[in-house]
Amino acid sequence: MIIPTFDDMLAAHERARPYIHRTPVLTSSYVNTLAGCEIFFKCENFQKAGAFKVRGASNAVFGLSDAEAKNGVCTHSSGNHALSLSYAAGRRGIPCNVVMPRTAPEAKKAAVRGYGGTITECEPSTSSREEVFAQVQEQTGGNFVHPYNDPRVIAGQGTCSRELLEQMEDFGGELDMVVAPIGGGGMISGTCLTLSNLAPKVQVIAAEPEQADDAYRSFKAGHIIADDAPETVADGLKVPLKDLTWHFVKNHVSDILTASDPEIVDAMKLIWQRMKIVMEPSSAVPLATILKNKDIFAGKRVGVIITGGNVDLAKLPWL
Amino acid sequence: MIIPTFDDMLAAHERARPYIHRTPVLTSSYVNTLAGCEIFFKCENFQKAGAFKVRGASNAVFGLSDAEAKNGVCTHSSGNHALSLSYAAGRRGIPCNVVMPRTAPEAKKAAVRGYGGTITECEPSTSSREEVFAQVQEQTGGNFVHPYNDPRVIAGQGTCSRELLEQMEDFGGELDMVVAPIGGGGMISGTCLTLSNLAPKVQVIAAEPEQADDAYRSFKAGHIIADDAPETVADGLKVPLKDLTWHFVKNHVSDILTASDPEIVDAMKLIWQRMKIVMEPSSAVPLATILKNKDIFAGKRVGVIITGGNVDLAKLPWL
Repeated sequence: MIIPTFDDMLAAHERARPYIHRTPVLTSSYVNTLAGCEIFFKCENFQKAGAFKVRGASNAVFGLSDAEAKNGVCTHSSGNHALSLSYAAGRRGIPCNVVMPRTAPEAKKAAVRGYGGTITECEPSTSSREEVFAQVQEQTGGNFVHPYNDPRVIAGQGTCSRELLEQMEDFGGELDMVVAPIGGGGMISGTCLTLSNLAPKVQVIAAEPEQADDAYRSFKAGHIIADDAPETVADGLKVPLKDLTWHFVKNHVSDILTASDPEIVDAMKLIWQRMKIVMEPSSAVPLATILKNKDIFAGKRVGVIITGGNVDLAKLPWL
Repeated sequence: MIIPTFDDMLAAHERARPYIHRTPVLTSSYVNTLAGCEIFFKCENFQKAGAFKVRGASNAVFGLSDAEAKNGVCTHSSGNHALSLSYAAGRRGIPCNVVMPRTAPEAKKAAVRGYGGTITECEPSTSSREEVFAQVQEQTGGNFVHPYNDPRVIAGQGTCSRELLEQMEDFGGELDMVVAPIGGGGMISGTCLTLSNLAPKVQVIAAEPEQADDAYRSFKAGHIIADDAPETVADGLKVPLKDLTWHFVKNHVSDILTASDPEIVDAMKLIWQRMKIVMEPSSAVPLATILKNKDIFAGKRVGVIITGGNVDLAKLPWL
């Protein structure tokens, strides 16, 4: 296990910068009043390829030597990592092979193809995903860029909260906590990596769907608990922790809060309606947990990572 | 007929500034490639009350003397002006009575009530609207702030393109044209007022739904043609030109282009999908006309006003 360092995050930022956006931070006085705290939304739904995952993917792809890049890259992913890796590989001009569950949103599959990636479908379970992926990797010989349990990816995701801290200067200063969704834990791990170095007083809180609460149970139990095929509207958050991400969760996360699928959908619709931005269900989990735990956040200054905006517009969860 | 002047626009900006946002300008490399030109979207969907209309409404409400404001304000509106006037009246602490078609989007009606406005419903035709409004005005004695045929409102709407011109400095300079939707013509008139003074070489192009193309036919005929009850997905653009807005259209608009309802819905979905922003059908008419008239815009730098973001999320037009 190679744990990425703060210097790795800084290097990742230099390497990925030409391929990523510095996404805006938005606020809503309506949402603040409702939540009883000040929320600063870091809008990675406006990121290249529509999600924060392009940070880690770009760092991995552009960190390869020409020899390592020869056979391209490959991965398995519920969606956003697949299309981010396809985007980054396309920018470098190398092949990208991805294994995706057949149930992944059509918008995400179409985007992968649009960026030139090749999809092999699997069943929507961790076991099927890993089995099909082993075949694809053997056939292609591509460099495996794991969607989250990869030091290059975690270092890349850490660039998001570095930007957030810098951007807070426009909003009168420091944060008390940052809340981000947790699936496999790549964004949370990157957030921990950056904040534990740059702003160690800022608490990192992970937000998870009740219906895929393996990280919450792992956190309480003190060891990784993995479910094979959880089902939740937050399609990006179904995967389990792995050793690297568990390292960061165990050592740096202050708490993990959960929200039910109806609460997630309500928070998603609230953000669309009031903030006029398109974001996916996974990105609404932090606000859902804030609204049901107002005592924890009362009067605080809270950063929230809106992780992505790739959603099937024909299949909105409140319809 | 009192024609607002450039100084009126400057005064409107000072008066309205505390109650409005300086909304961002967004770009999309995907949309630019598709359209064959460079588009700079001025995002009034992020405006207070969710639409540009709050500019004119705030100018009117805060320009009233205390005596004039005594009985509050009143208006008729298909939606965004109603809720913008309710917002501005609420900020000043005076009553606001609005007449809205019973078919107006529920999201807009709910927002009016949320801002403290009182709604009287009418049938979805110009004749019914004006008849019901006459009764409401007589009963309340409120100051009538017309949704567009009012010099205070046009001066307020003109502040939008003033900001756009200033913001273009971040994008390397000047525009060749600005495209904005046309319904009653308030935004277009304000755009003409500002650009004819600040940047007279910038063409102003109006974009209109084919199914409510009275402004297009007026423009070609040389006199106002008004339809009583047109039906289009672009619910904000069903009202006819009036003398003041016709003055600006006749003298300053370079051309009026139209798009069909399916083309408008396609452009709307494209913007949601690719730019991750929520905007209403009326706001998609400019992009729809650009995509079907690529020869006119080829290689140009084009400002587009995204006029509002108040849409019923339960009734999306592509579903």
